[in-house]
Parts: sequence; structure tokens; C-alpha cells
Amino acid sequence: MDILLSGTFGAREREAWRQTLAAVFPSGRWLDDAQAKATPSSVRAAVVANPAPGALQGLPALGLIQSLWAGVEGLLADPTLPPGVPLARMVDPRMNAAMAETALWAVLSLQRDFFTYADQQRQRVWRQHPQRRADETRVRVLGLGQMGRAVALALQRQGFDVAGWAATPRALPQGLAGYFGDAALPEVLAQADILVNLLPLTPATRGLLCAARFDALPPGAALVNLARGAHVVDADLLAALDAGRLRHAVLDVFASEPLPPAHAYWTHPRVTVLPHVAAATDPRSAAEVVATNLQALADGRPLAHRVDRVRGY
Amino acid sequence: MDILLSGTFGAREREAWRQTLAAVFPSGRWLDDAQAKATPSSVRAAVVANPAPGALQGLPALGLIQSLWAGVEGLLADPTLPPGVPLARMVDPRMNAAMAETALWAVLSLQRDFFTYADQQRQRVWRQHPQRRADETRVRVLGLGQMGRAVALALQRQGFDVAGWAATPRALPQGLAGYFGDAALPEVLAQADILVNLLPLTPATRGLLCAARFDALPPGAALVNLARGAHVVDADLLAALDAGRLRHAVLDVFASEPLPPAHAYWTHPRVTVLPHVAAATDPRSAAEVVATNLQALADGRPLAHRVDRVRGY
Repeated sequence: MDILLSGTFGAREREAWRQTLAAVFPSGRWLDDAQAKATPSSVRAAVVANPAPGALQGLPALGLIQSLWAGVEGLLADPTLPPGVPLARMVDPRMNAAMAETALWAVLSLQRDFFTYADQQRQRVWRQHPQRRADETRVRVLGLGQMGRAVALALQRQGFDVAGWAATPRALPQGLAGYFGDAALPEVLAQADILVNLLPLTPATRGLLCAARFDALPPGAALVNLARGAHVVDADLLAALDAGRLRHAVLDVFASEPLPPAHAYWTHPRVTVLPHVAAATDPRSAAEVVATNLQALADGRPLAHRVDRVRGY
Repeated sequence: MDILLSGTFGAREREAWRQTLAAVFPSGRWLDDAQAKATPSSVRAAVVANPAPGALQGLPALGLIQSLWAGVEGLLADPTLPPGVPLARMVDPRMNAAMAETALWAVLSLQRDFFTYADQQRQRVWRQHPQRRADETRVRVLGLGQMGRAVALALQRQGFDVAGWAATPRALPQGLAGYFGDAALPEVLAQADILVNLLPLTPATRGLLCAARFDALPPGAALVNLARGAHVVDADLLAALDAGRLRHAVLDVFASEPLPPAHAYWTHPRVTVLPHVAAATDPRSAAEVVATNLQALADGRPLAHRVDRVRGY
């Protein structure tokens, strides 16, 4: 099977992906953009990570576009994306585990004042703050997809008071409280000592985290954004932090990445900046996920992790 | 029952403890040092947190010395400690949970390079480092008492490759690997990508973490010391960090506390300093533990959490 491997990779990174994919799907012939354009009618699948606009056009036999990334809003925004071709997101258990690790680290840091102690170290200040209990720390998770559920369960297992919110009702693992729909959002926000964002980026969620939502949080709440920068209205977040309305924000994602050197987030005393590292695709486990879907395509079986293009995820 | 409440409390902290203890053991009459000296023969128990030397002398009816702290090496070092009086440590499930939180935060920070990203933020550097897998991160826990076990289990639950070491054999929860005795220590150290110290401080463990032990770790290992400062030979640790032999140390405890302002740890780029906050006694749950032991004393039943004065814990 001829497969296009396309994305904004460096040459070494592309070759590493090609070798990892070839090891788990040896019947594939892996083409780059130029090779695919040379024999367009043979290309059955495309495995992509932020491909150049137009890279997927003019491939008449294309039966699957498999993203190496969980978020597909970039792909969906490309007007040259061929309509009608099944599109699949990356749903990688290892990536979910990495996201849960980052969320747990951020929530523990906020619960136990470890960001404050890091500031104190720089000032050589020895001062102890009251120790909060996990079961008295209410963490509310926005988004209950694969990642949101993995995060909520890891936090709950660690003893936090956890509940989640999603736009539409869904089944949740036993013992995990869920709230659904726009009408329930204010109630969830009012409970959130720590708000963790893992929503998909869609027209409905873009700019959701704005002044009105920050005002709905308890005074002194903290925000952990591990989803997309465009969920946050940056000016509103900075105003809420400056006013002390929010006590801290941990931000892994930004409207523009890399975060521009002059951006106020870099130096804000209440902001922790991560360079989009909350959960990287793990090539070893992601390749297995890709191989499974490629084999399903070859066998004519149903494809996994299909994206609903209207819903946006 | 007349009970001496003695320690290096501030007046407000002492009163908070007295009220919390009185609420769960209402039949107690809580005396301070001066009151106890006035009616020494009525004092049946002493509840202590670093009491002044001599505070426990001359109390002929004393049947229990209950520490509010888990570590009792300070008490045992006091030559005026009355011999023969049962001495009990604080074993508080909430304190164990707090210790597990701190260990988990430190290990996640080291696994996922969050200390490095904090440094990068101060320099406005956007750079991603390879993401380590928890199941490929070997954490070795020294000390398998209440706290060591709680820490090891929390790390294992989070997916880390965990094993523990203790000086003497003991039963462990199913699935937790243990190594016992001095002969096994080099093997455990050789496996430790991250070494977490939760040993009791005894003559046998004082200065244990010295150059020879650091040299036994894999190159680039990290140390998390949550036990006592005197476990570490500071000059050896600084040398190992400066040489790059160790990549990082998270230190909550120090030979002298508060850590002196001029100490090299404060500003060392590979050292994270915490002001002895890994696990504070939680007054609400600790008071329950104290009340249970006071009731056992009143009823003539066996006392819990007895310290072996020869062993030192």
C-alpha cells in the first residue's frame, strides 16, 4: 500500500517516524509529498502532522487521512482538505497518560504551593504555607474526551475532588461525576478551585475562557490550560490574574506558538509557561495506532477514531 | 486525665492544637509546662512537638509520651528523656498522603523536565525535550515504613517502575518489590533513575547519602530527600551535582533549618529547595491519632506506634 507521510517535520524527525511506522506496518510504501504527486493514483492513505496546504489534494484513491496529532482543527481549517475522505485523529493511550501526568503535576503544584516555594527559593525565603488537603481541593475538568477522562481519573485516583464537564452528554467511568451542556457550565465553574481545560477547539469553544467565565470561578481559583491557546482570551486572563481574581495559570498552549518573546505571559509572576509539552505523541505507541487503522483500511473494516467534520473533533 | 502539651509552638499554634485535641479527647485537662511542674504527679501523658530539654522530667505518673511528629530523633537525643516511659510516633494517614503528594510532584517534575521548563521560562526559551515514559523511569525508595510505603504505592499507581529498600526485611503490599539489608543497597542504587529518601534518621543512616552512594547511582540520576537533612553529606551532594554526576536534587530537609541564607543550595541551578513542607502534621487527623492512644492509656490497652528506643524509630 502506498502511503503519503506528510507534515512539518525536520528531515531527521520524518525519517524517525518513517522507520517506526515501517516497523509496525511493513507492507506500506512510504512516500513524501513529491513522490505522491508523481504517482497520485496509487496513494491509498495519508499519515499527517500539520501537512502543507494542498498536500492532500489530487489523490483520487485516498481512503484515509490519519493525523499523528490529537487536535485536528488545523487540518479542518485547510480549505483544500479533500471532502469525503475519512479523517482520523490520534488517540494514543500513552499520550493520554502523558497528559494525565502533566495535569497531575500542575494540580499538585497548585494544591501544595510548589510554584510559590519556587519563587521563595529565588528570594531565599524560608516560609511554610498551610497544607491543603486533596479531598478538599475541587478540580473541574472541561472536556471529557479520551484525554479529559484520563486526566479526571488520574486526579480522582490521587484523592482530589473531581468532576468533569462536556458540551454533550456521554457515559463516564463509574464514580466520575459529569455535568453536560451550556446550562450546567456556570455551576461547574463556581465549584472549580482548579479548572483544567481539555476541550477540543471548535467554533463553539474558541474564546470560551474569557472574563465572564473567570468571574464565575471562586475567588483565587487557578487555571490549567492543556488544550489550545485559542480557548483563552489572553487579555481577560491577564486582567483576572493582575486583579488577583485568579491566583495562577499554568499554560501549555498559546494563540501563537512559539510564544513570542515579548508576550506578557513569559514574565508574569502568576503564570507558568510550558512550551507545548503537556503530551507529545509517543512514536512507538502512535505507530501502533496508525498501523491498526491502515490494516483496517486494507481489509475494508471500519476505521477507528473518525472525526466528525461538522462537530470539529 | 491531666496531659502536658509541650513544644516549640507559638501561642496561637499551641492554642489551635489544644482546641483541636480537646474536641476529640474532651476528658483531658491540657497543661502547659509551668502547670505541669506545679502538679507533676497528676500528669499521665505528654503530647509533644520538639519540647524544651527537661520538659518531660520529674513527672512520676507519666505513662505515654506521644509525639506530634513522625520523626523522633530529636526527642531521643535529649538525655533528660525519662527512660522506660512508652514513646509513640505520629503515624497519620493524612500525613502519609501529603508525603506521597510531594514525592509524586517531585518525581513527575524530574521525569517530565518541569524544573528545566521553569528555568527556560525565566530565559524566555521555547524548547521541547524528549518525553520520558513513567514505566521506563525507575524510582527507588529508601525506607519502607508508613511513609515510604505510601510513597512507593502512589508512584507505582501512577505507572512508574518502583522498588523499595529497607535495612531489615518486612512484608510489603502485593506487587511492590522490596530489597533488604546493606548488601542489597548497591544493586538498588544502580537501578535508581530517581532516588527518593524516606529513611528514619538513626546512627546507621546518618550521612548515608555520601559520595560513595552517589557514585553507585546511574549517571544523571536525581535525588529527592524528604526525610532528614543529616542523611546527606552536603559537600558530597554539591560535588556530585557540580560534576554533572547527578542531574538534580529536590531537598525538603537540611542539616540546619531554616536553611542559612548563605547556603549554596539556595542558588544552585540543579537544586530545588523546599522549606520542610513535604508533609505537615494535619491537626485534624493527628488529633484523632493522639486521642486513640490517650484512650488506650486510660483503658490500660496496648499503645500504638511505639518507638523502639534502641533502633531509633
